[in-house]
Amino acid sequence: MTSNPSFQPAHTTPVDLAERSYDIHIGPDLLRHAGHVLKTLSAGARALIISDSHVFEHHGHTLVQSLEDDAIAYETHVVTPGEPSKSWQPLQEIVDKALSMRLERGDVIIAFGGGVIGDLAGFAAAITLRGVRLIQIPTSLLAQVDSSVGGKTGINARQGKNLIGAFYQPLAVLADTHVLDTLPAREFRAGFAEVIKYGLINDAAFFTWLETHRHAIFEGGSQRAEAIARCCRAKANIVAEDEREKGRRALLNLGHTFGHALEGLCHYDGSKLVHGEGVALGMVMAFAFSQEMGLASKDDLARIITLLKASGLPVHPSEHLSEAVTAEQMMHFMLQDKKVSKGSLTLILARGIGHSFIARDVDQGKVSDFLTRFLAHHTAV
Amino acid sequence: MTSNPSFQPAHTTPVDLAERSYDIHIGPDLLRHAGHVLKTLSAGARALIISDSHVFEHHGHTLVQSLEDDAIAYETHVVTPGEPSKSWQPLQEIVDKALSMRLERGDVIIAFGGGVIGDLAGFAAAITLRGVRLIQIPTSLLAQVDSSVGGKTGINARQGKNLIGAFYQPLAVLADTHVLDTLPAREFRAGFAEVIKYGLINDAAFFTWLETHRHAIFEGGSQRAEAIARCCRAKANIVAEDEREKGRRALLNLGHTFGHALEGLCHYDGSKLVHGEGVALGMVMAFAFSQEMGLASKDDLARIITLLKASGLPVHPSEHLSEAVTAEQMMHFMLQDKKVSKGSLTLILARGIGHSFIARDVDQGKVSDFLTRFLAHHTAV
Repeated sequence: MTSNPSFQPAHTTPVDLAERSYDIHIGPDLLRHAGHVLKTLSAGARALIISDSHVFEHHGHTLVQSLEDDAIAYETHVVTPGEPSKSWQPLQEIVDKALSMRLERGDVIIAFGGGVIGDLAGFAAAITLRGVRLIQIPTSLLAQVDSSVGGKTGINARQGKNLIGAFYQPLAVLADTHVLDTLPAREFRAGFAEVIKYGLINDAAFFTWLETHRHAIFEGGSQRAEAIARCCRAKANIVAEDEREKGRRALLNLGHTFGHALEGLCHYDGSKLVHGEGVALGMVMAFAFSQEMGLASKDDLARIITLLKASGLPVHPSEHLSEAVTAEQMMHFMLQDKKVSKGSLTLILARGIGHSFIARDVDQGKVSDFLTRFLAHHTAV
Repeated sequence: MTSNPSFQPAHTTPVDLAERSYDIHIGPDLLRHAGHVLKTLSAGARALIISDSHVFEHHGHTLVQSLEDDAIAYETHVVTPGEPSKSWQPLQEIVDKALSMRLERGDVIIAFGGGVIGDLAGFAAAITLRGVRLIQIPTSLLAQVDSSVGGKTGINARQGKNLIGAFYQPLAVLADTHVLDTLPAREFRAGFAEVIKYGLINDAAFFTWLETHRHAIFEGGSQRAEAIARCCRAKANIVAEDEREKGRRALLNLGHTFGHALEGLCHYDGSKLVHGEGVALGMVMAFAFSQEMGLASKDDLARIITLLKASGLPVHPSEHLSEAVTAEQMMHFMLQDKKVSKGSLTLILARGIGHSFIARDVDQGKVSDFLTRFLAHHTAV
């Protein structure tokens, strides 16, 4: 078999970054076109597949078959699933593997997995020979709508998550929407929190569309690919304007400052709180705080809570976490965030669904008072 | 004391890289203006000084005094001098130090030392928080004319030198020409090989000027600053055209493919062969091969050998190394170079002094035959 000429993804979203521009392809069964895409973009290149053992067990054969069909030489390096793999040692092992197989700058690292793999393998690609080519094949909903798009790569430090890394854009992103069928339900839901986020940031119509089509997206119909494509388009637009997060890109952190604090308090233990759940809780807090400040309406907050609950996502820490969380604990983590500048607190707040904005120099006292009240209640409203 | 208003470097060379543009300041006694430069470019920033124990012992007090005069908060991290510090463990320690002192993206890492420190600290700056600010204060001639300019940063891998890293541009480069007075003579000579390289690449007039002013440059007069400024200007021009080494920048590798092979054969043991000596030998080989191919004249080769010898630099491996080197050994290393593409050999050859060019797909057999003949003789001519 040779290159597959029938490569027709349901959606293709360009990310416009001058000479670093690339396409995100979204649709069912794209994985078996991976070899074709690689060959088209980097003829003659060899590949190093980075994956985790879960993903590779389920879908490795499809990817490998696709590369073999296109006669692409490849090697595979499989890491342990989970956040601890985003650290120095696994990074070094990938770079060492790439150098040992004498990868050249025109060769390709394929990041084949969820957010952890995308961040880890992407960072390895950025620093091997000061940059080898990279193709992202995200296999979780979260990675498809968020982490695989925009070029943020990195590992965790003992001081916090994602504190070490690089901005490094891929050659292409392939988001196969069928691969998500094997995702655990909790992970799919968590990814859906990030989908909702795009509606909240600047697209009220998308939020309304999600209220209507939530069920179909979970079921895996054409609406799933459409939802993912709309998220990628939204993120691509923001990233094209502000690749290195000097301004508007910070909007993508809606719910993340509060959410990261909760994740930190759970020691990033995914059995207690996965990232998307933290984001769901954080978005509720951002809107509840915005409402308390007279910015957003009670109705908007209620709609958000309804959609999150219907999606199986948490809306208040006390309903989700076994241990109580205090405002003091959360403030401690929030002031450690890498986006903190000169000690002042920057939050993403909103004047309503689809009307988020970057609020700089937010009064720490007001945030702390809000958290005290919010956490004292046992539900979000 | 406050910021020093009398900052008037003998030479200032801009590096034109759009939003990543910066200035290289060159002249005597610039070190005591470091605080002023930092404050001007990044008001309110804190600093993390990365240095090695030799450099910091000789010149640390001047740098520190300058920062204190401008009321800049700083911490210091000193590493072991020498090439082994360009590795994962020292890199991790610097990043950990930066994160522990809660450096923010607007804060500054100061790379204060020779090429090793510039590469190591520059890479740490590139990946801490996906990029904190960087000021290069090179303290060796080699670093002032070469490694501190152009944004290449990195560490070594067991598979070879500089195989892991990033392209990362500094906020400014401060080249204090008086600092070079404390440099060991052998290191100064080695740096001078890179100075000569700029004449050989594309500036025959500069080569002639060096033949005349070599002595004054070694003595430390105004010609020293001028020579450094001309090299920086030459490198800045090439880098501005080709930041990521996709084309013309490869000219800067004149003498380096042969030179790296010799360094590799010496296991990068600086007591046997320092980098600049390898470059000197490599430049002779590049011109001798060019002459053999009918490209360059015997006269040009003779002038090069005369200037290198007068500068105390080696011109033939047999005169410099205690063990014999074979063509086979050199070819083995040359084919490992990270600039090798699809296994074909790319060399920088020349049609004469000042007329170097990138020769792609060079016949490996011809190179091997040339090396066999060249190495069999005991002198270069």
